[in-house]
Amino acid sequence: MTAFDDLMAHQRDTEALGQILGRLHWDQEAMMPRGASVQRSEEIAALTAVLHARRTDPRMADWLAQAEAPDDAGAAALRLIARAHARATRVPGRLASEIARATSIAQGVWAEARARDEPALFLPSLAEVLDLKREEAAALAQGTDTAPYDVLIDDFEPGATAQGIGAIFDRMRPRLVALRAAVIDAPHQPPTLRGHFDRTAQMRLAREMAGVFGYDFAHGRIDEVVHPFCSGGGQDVRITTRTAEDDPFNCLYSTIHETGHAAYEQSIAPEYRLTPLGHGASMGVHESQARMYENQLGRSRAFCGWLHDRMTAEFGDLGLGGADGFYGAVNRINPGHIRTEADEVQYNLHIMLRFDLERALVAGDLAVADLECAWNDRFEADFGYGVPRASLGMLQDVHWSLGLFGYFPTYALGNVYAGCLHAALLRDVPDLDTHLGAGDPGPATDWLRTHLQVHGGLRTAGDTIRHAIGTDPDEGPLLDYLEAKFSALYRL
Amino acid sequence: MTAFDDLMAHQRDTEALGQILGRLHWDQEAMMPRGASVQRSEEIAALTAVLHARRTDPRMADWLAQAEAPDDAGAAALRLIARAHARATRVPGRLASEIARATSIAQGVWAEARARDEPALFLPSLAEVLDLKREEAAALAQGTDTAPYDVLIDDFEPGATAQGIGAIFDRMRPRLVALRAAVIDAPHQPPTLRGHFDRTAQMRLAREMAGVFGYDFAHGRIDEVVHPFCSGGGQDVRITTRTAEDDPFNCLYSTIHETGHAAYEQSIAPEYRLTPLGHGASMGVHESQARMYENQLGRSRAFCGWLHDRMTAEFGDLGLGGADGFYGAVNRINPGHIRTEADEVQYNLHIMLRFDLERALVAGDLAVADLECAWNDRFEADFGYGVPRASLGMLQDVHWSLGLFGYFPTYALGNVYAGCLHAALLRDVPDLDTHLGAGDPGPATDWLRTHLQVHGGLRTAGDTIRHAIGTDPDEGPLLDYLEAKFSALYRL
Repeated sequence: MTAFDDLMAHQRDTEALGQILGRLHWDQEAMMPRGASVQRSEEIAALTAVLHARRTDPRMADWLAQAEAPDDAGAAALRLIARAHARATRVPGRLASEIARATSIAQGVWAEARARDEPALFLPSLAEVLDLKREEAAALAQGTDTAPYDVLIDDFEPGATAQGIGAIFDRMRPRLVALRAAVIDAPHQPPTLRGHFDRTAQMRLAREMAGVFGYDFAHGRIDEVVHPFCSGGGQDVRITTRTAEDDPFNCLYSTIHETGHAAYEQSIAPEYRLTPLGHGASMGVHESQARMYENQLGRSRAFCGWLHDRMTAEFGDLGLGGADGFYGAVNRINPGHIRTEADEVQYNLHIMLRFDLERALVAGDLAVADLECAWNDRFEADFGYGVPRASLGMLQDVHWSLGLFGYFPTYALGNVYAGCLHAALLRDVPDLDTHLGAGDPGPATDWLRTHLQVHGGLRTAGDTIRHAIGTDPDEGPLLDYLEAKFSALYRL
Repeated sequence: MTAFDDLMAHQRDTEALGQILGRLHWDQEAMMPRGASVQRSEEIAALTAVLHARRTDPRMADWLAQAEAPDDAGAAALRLIARAHARATRVPGRLASEIARATSIAQGVWAEARARDEPALFLPSLAEVLDLKREEAAALAQGTDTAPYDVLIDDFEPGATAQGIGAIFDRMRPRLVALRAAVIDAPHQPPTLRGHFDRTAQMRLAREMAGVFGYDFAHGRIDEVVHPFCSGGGQDVRITTRTAEDDPFNCLYSTIHETGHAAYEQSIAPEYRLTPLGHGASMGVHESQARMYENQLGRSRAFCGWLHDRMTAEFGDLGLGGADGFYGAVNRINPGHIRTEADEVQYNLHIMLRFDLERALVAGDLAVADLECAWNDRFEADFGYGVPRASLGMLQDVHWSLGLFGYFPTYALGNVYAGCLHAALLRDVPDLDTHLGAGDPGPATDWLRTHLQVHGGLRTAGDTIRHAIGTDPDEGPLLDYLEAKFSALYRL
């Protein structure tokens, strides 16, 4: 066995154990009895410790120093293993334990603060988590001149920087604010869906939609939970969705979104399974697949025409005045405060707000005590109305309680990437609408599979997109698409 | 930290990882998509290797040498850890891998041989597995004068010996053969249930039965699978069951059986959770709980009276002529060849046959080539008719392909223990039938909980039963119970 073979054999078991950890999280949300949470947290802690020991195994430094990659895929795997090893070894065990403990507590405190709408309750926990994450960032950055927030971003979007993302977001913001304002004030407003829709029928239709978008049920399953997600990799990629009796769109489009995540994982070349290349390239690239399935494909006029007929067959007349009304209803932009309920336009504004605030928090330019005020000011500037209570503002998301600083921007980066991929797809498949109108996204999902998904983690996030579209990604295509789509829909 | 504390902390994580391994097996049978089996086997192999490394950790010998138990529970935990450590270290890694590989292949070969009814196809695999298990037994027995088969039994029923079990079985066999023959030839025969029974209603009733027998749904769940089983421990003990449209008894009594296993695990003292005491004392003691819930309680005349009314309410008239016919139908003894379909009387004969044959195989007194002939001769001697084909004979069980020599006798030991526990229960709760007749096994399950289940693995199997009943266990109560029950039912 060469050092490369030793390292890859070690990594293969680590990847297999990582799959098990993901399965435990799935089970916790989808299957676990409610009284098992203490034991489950002990199980997860034990397995996490095993994974940490494997990633910091002293033999890895020797293997990495001696390993010679036989090909490009091997070289990419070595880079990813070295990166994970460096990140794992740089953070002292004491600090990692502190972060695990503090975030576990902070999540509970956040939930109570949100339920009682008392931000002051959450601030001490948030301050502690923030301090620990800044300490972690300093440990990770040692010996480099990387800024702390960039180090944290790197955990989710390797290679991205706050400066690069900030430049994109700064160019997007004025055009999105303007588009949002025009749409909200437009005299023509699309209809809203009303009624009661059987949950069993929704789940049946959701499974059908997953199949339409290429989900492979032989290597996955769909279950109902509180918060939809996708988990697993390789031969076992599971998705979850939710149902609400008055809102079948939520179930269907959540399912199509998660199918985008799942199709990415399911389409990665089989020879990358249980290697570092057997995952999506980054959170942003992953989100681009989910967003494109959900929005550019699933909420297109062409596909909506087909879906309208399908839903009418299932539920009877929807009272939306036909396919055009249906298309309007699934794309309707409503005034609101909550990120997870936002449409294609406002979603990005929600993200930019969080990006600027968390960047300032990590840099030490914004104190936790001033966060609510800063949030509310920025919200009013972009959305034109205030935040009546913290549960509709800075307390709405779980992320910061979990220490997930640097995660939010990947959502909007995903939209930017999706815009680029959509433009490139339309060049290669000019008659896409004909297929979508027949309920067949196959030409689009095939294009994504061969141009992007099959390569998994072979390339960095930026190179993954560049390889698929042939140029550097930028925000232009997304903004052009949004302005064209919503100007037409709202007759601006 | 003392050596004892270090050892128990190490063990706690090992126990937590062991729970995860059990969960993976549950998921594989109950949830896993069909295309994920290769990856799942890699995940299980990786986690099994982690567990093996923890159980053979060189620090354990030092800890075990230095640890001082603070109390009886600590001393029992030390004994169990030392035992597992000794077993894990005595088997060379090369041999453990060989057994894993050979049994994995043999299981597939066995399935094909059974499907094609070709025993010759299976014999080479069986011979290889047997040789490897004999090698393992020799490794485990080194430095002692324990016989190979006793070493293998010890894996499932610590402390039991072939001689002790054989003496019990030899006393049971003539009385059971005679009872079986009398019953089969009796002029009066109970009715048989016929009809179609909605599977959803069966599952609803199965969940109700689990609740009636004390299953804690806050710390478990019930799902439908091909082969019923119970898995997990501590806060998360799951059971599975199956449905067949023409046989609701199978679903209900399988569920009550698994509820017995689950109630044992769920009732163990919470302070034993994630310690070596947090499991049942042995396979035999575990089986005694499952059998007692299923048979002595669930198939009693008193409980059958209540269940008859409950099932009639669910499915309408069952065509059995009332509660007496119902009681006869659930206890009916049918001529047949298959162990898993056998009743309370014949089941033990099936086990004794396997015990004698596998004991001879491991001792080298019976050649694999002569197994089918030996099986068929013995079957005809005990049951009075021949075995028409190997799938109804030596190919019917998966156990030997998996290397599970020494496992079969624990099923019948469980029946023997259940007989003893039932007799002791009736002394303490003389009006048990009044409660069972009202659909309330509570006084029985409470008695089992306080006398046996709560203690988990604190005592050896034999001491666990002795502690519960106050005397040494023997086969007398079981045989007296069976002869009385079936003589009355068949009007002998």
